Amino acid sequence: MGALGLGPVIEANAAAYRAPQRGDFTLSGRAGAKVVVLGAGIAGLATAYELGKAGYDVRILEAKNRPGGRNWTVRGGTVETDLDGRTQRATFSDGQYMNAGPGRLPQSHVTLDYCRELGVELEVFTNQNANAYIHHENVGGALAGQRMRYRTAKADVYGYVSELLATATDQGALDKELTAADKERLLEFLRGFGDIGGRADGWAYTGSSRRGYEVEPGAGLEAGTVLGDVPSLSDVVASGVGRRFSFEFGYDQAMMMFQPVGGMDRIPYALAKAIGRGRITYGAEATGVRNLPDGAEVSWQDARGRKHVEHADFVVVATPPMIAARFEHNLGADVTAALKYPVASAAGKIGLEYRSRWWETDEHIYGGITETDSDLAHIWYPSSGFQSRRGTVIGYYNTGAAARAYGELPHAEREARAVSRGVKIHGEKYRTELAASFSVAWHRTRFIEGAWVGWPSQTGPEYRLLNEPAGRVYFAGDWLSHAIAWQHGAFTSARKVVTGIHERVLQA
Amino acid sequence: MGALGLGPVIEANAAAYRAPQRGDFTLSGRAGAKVVVLGAGIAGLATAYELGKAGYDVRILEAKNRPGGRNWTVRGGTVETDLDGRTQRATFSDGQYMNAGPGRLPQSHVTLDYCRELGVELEVFTNQNANAYIHHENVGGALAGQRMRYRTAKADVYGYVSELLATATDQGALDKELTAADKERLLEFLRGFGDIGGRADGWAYTGSSRRGYEVEPGAGLEAGTVLGDVPSLSDVVASGVGRRFSFEFGYDQAMMMFQPVGGMDRIPYALAKAIGRGRITYGAEATGVRNLPDGAEVSWQDARGRKHVEHADFVVVATPPMIAARFEHNLGADVTAALKYPVASAAGKIGLEYRSRWWETDEHIYGGITETDSDLAHIWYPSSGFQSRRGTVIGYYNTGAAARAYGELPHAEREARAVSRGVKIHGEKYRTELAASFSVAWHRTRFIEGAWVGWPSQTGPEYRLLNEPAGRVYFAGDWLSHAIAWQHGAFTSARKVVTGIHERVLQA
Repeated sequence: MGALGLGPVIEANAAAYRAPQRGDFTLSGRAGAKVVVLGAGIAGLATAYELGKAGYDVRILEAKNRPGGRNWTVRGGTVETDLDGRTQRATFSDGQYMNAGPGRLPQSHVTLDYCRELGVELEVFTNQNANAYIHHENVGGALAGQRMRYRTAKADVYGYVSELLATATDQGALDKELTAADKERLLEFLRGFGDIGGRADGWAYTGSSRRGYEVEPGAGLEAGTVLGDVPSLSDVVASGVGRRFSFEFGYDQAMMMFQPVGGMDRIPYALAKAIGRGRITYGAEATGVRNLPDGAEVSWQDARGRKHVEHADFVVVATPPMIAARFEHNLGADVTAALKYPVASAAGKIGLEYRSRWWETDEHIYGGITETDSDLAHIWYPSSGFQSRRGTVIGYYNTGAAARAYGELPHAEREARAVSRGVKIHGEKYRTELAASFSVAWHRTRFIEGAWVGWPSQTGPEYRLLNEPAGRVYFAGDWLSHAIAWQHGAFTSARKVVTGIHERVLQA
Repeated sequence: MGALGLGPVIEANAAAYRAPQRGDFTLSGRAGAKVVVLGAGIAGLATAYELGKAGYDVRILEAKNRPGGRNWTVRGGTVETDLDGRTQRATFSDGQYMNAGPGRLPQSHVTLDYCRELGVELEVFTNQNANAYIHHENVGGALAGQRMRYRTAKADVYGYVSELLATATDQGALDKELTAADKERLLEFLRGFGDIGGRADGWAYTGSSRRGYEVEPGAGLEAGTVLGDVPSLSDVVASGVGRRFSFEFGYDQAMMMFQPVGGMDRIPYALAKAIGRGRITYGAEATGVRNLPDGAEVSWQDARGRKHVEHADFVVVATPPMIAARFEHNLGADVTAALKYPVASAAGKIGLEYRSRWWETDEHIYGGITETDSDLAHIWYPSSGFQSRRGTVIGYYNTGAAARAYGELPHAEREARAVSRGVKIHGEKYRTELAASFSVAWHRTRFIEGAWVGWPSQTGPEYRLLNEPAGRVYFAGDWLSHAIAWQHGAFTSARKVVTGIHERVLQA
């Protein structure tokens, strides 16, 4: 490999996983044990799915009436009552949906391998679009409150950065850092990178067709008119647009990104189908978990409030830690303390269905994300149904204080606030074309209570404790991984627990 | 608009077009004229389609046995004999195809409006992928011959650029160009842009998770191992990887990009269907065009060599200029000279169908483009059928001398050469998994004879002459636009000719 210049293969841990198989018991002579899983989010489903491959007797208890947990696709008819007792009923048209939780899949995450294995069809998630906008109101300089297309902002930032670095390089300011050959190569790179002039032009950035056109090139003598009025270096720097670009470089956010065709919940529904319908009980709210001499047991109540106790060889708690912390249990005070240790985050989204896809027809924005410094944070244009009649925009995807502020409002006020902000970017059609909407505040969602968690430390005793079984009780979830808020974290955590249980059974 | 910070609307010329309508004649009392169009490429098809909206009596003569011209999708069963008499028959599997000509559509091009109007469904064309490679063999430094993922190369280039500019800025080398406030904001930007250290760290770039992982973050204590061995600044600059990044900033190449679902030729076939089957004659090779006192006439011969003459009110020559230059005509020596003035370019592509999608399963590359400095130039991974069984890679998309070199070879030798180069990047599976292939050399393709043309001048008399009618004979094509090699150029050129003819008819 080295001789061919082939680099190292990445993501070694995902590849190293070996799923339990029925044949494992043929060799060992042992039968599969009974396992009860609490929670049909991705971690719980993956646990049951993987154990099922070897014939384990698996049962999932899920408090909600659907699989997926935060992997939740809202369609017309979806009804949800939040922790404040407020009920929303989605009135989206046929074929329209919003992914209320996770919305994008990176190429290297194990989630894609599950999509392949389960037959979940993928399409591109448009995580980046040169035609989408950056809209900064709370900045200095002449660009404050102006919407700028990403392409325009990037041309200006990269142009000025190149001009500055070429100037400093050519004036000898970096002679300690650069050889003469480095300097010439760097200057050549910067000319192309920034579309700047040469030495004779003082390496000046004076605009570029990369900014876009006022009049596009076309037939005959129409050579196009490049978008003019290049802002000053000071205004570009003051606008803060440059801070948006590094998002695209992130390991988990760089294009290409993907989504299941038809909605993110194709993944949990495919898992649930593979597990088998009879193995998942919905409307089953766990209330307690106990280690016993010969196994473990779960207390739960059904949708009518009837109490049940379920015995098993092993229990996997795949709920959020905030929920598990309230279970009656005999696992010790350390476990309770550890479950309360991570901090739940707030996040919210609103789906706005429009009667027309004006962002495509009027603004030539086909997918992608507009970044704002308002409390909307991000606006997502749909990644599917291009050029069809209707479309559903994510009108905000916010976190922290902004998410808490929206979360406190009833849905109608969330919509009004989001629309009033969006009108500033897109004009009145953002209001007049609106057909339906639905919002989620994850920290105010029953049986979820947070968008994700943050650990003050992922090397301390609390995190380590929950990553080990408490007797015959295991914990699983993205919150027990280094890919928090990603399904990859839930899948890899489930695989870790499955491997632990299976090895224990085989060695028993 | 200004008060809201809404920027100017771009692409004004495309929006300004008004298609001829039947009602135009109701007002004027005049009937639609007869128009013969030579060539069923995009310009010819669009001319006939637009004139047909007003009821013109339109006929297209096309030398090939299909519509589209360079918009050509090769599938199993496609047969083509080139100018050197060599015949290829494609053996691609069902559902596999290669777009031999245009492959991508920018968001603002009028081509997308035609797709909407014609009901041609779109999906994302993956023009950029952080997981694809840059493979430079003919460069200096330690990285020569190494494949580097885009994400890795970009992290290193942006990291070092940020380190250098931060160093120069902080040392005062740019105090003439930057105010104190500019400097602080620029330094803050560079820290995020390059993922570099702060002042105390000497603004040093020492690697970043943006490079990718050797071991990916996962469950429990697996925090991941960032891809190590950060190359030196000199090696990064010498590798020339940085020159690849500006491609993504181009007005016509920045993501998002699109392609028709099922093949680029969905566009010409949709146009042909809208025009009406009886109006297009295939296998009809034009040989001459003459202005007459009362109209114009075309000489052509059919597939059996029989000669025909067709009379019309107007003729639109929508062939490549190299073809039209050989027509017998009475349009004057200036027209012949002008048709010979633009220079035909060479370009070639090879489609490689593989039995497995190893680039996805083994290398986590879902679409995108690998850039080489070999004669392959670009390798395209497929933008559709993700995670399905088979896939078709564009093994080279080259131009100029490289395209001519491949064009001179018979297909089997093109394949062998392309595969031997690809093995250096992807290993032996690039050879062993290969199932079928097909190649095109546009400059050696009958009735086409070039990938596109370059004009020594697009302001001189030759270009201007052909953009005006020669009596009742008009010329149309991307070669008469400022969007050469793009379907947008062909569409806008057709619109210009259609508008000219229609206004003339209404005013006659």
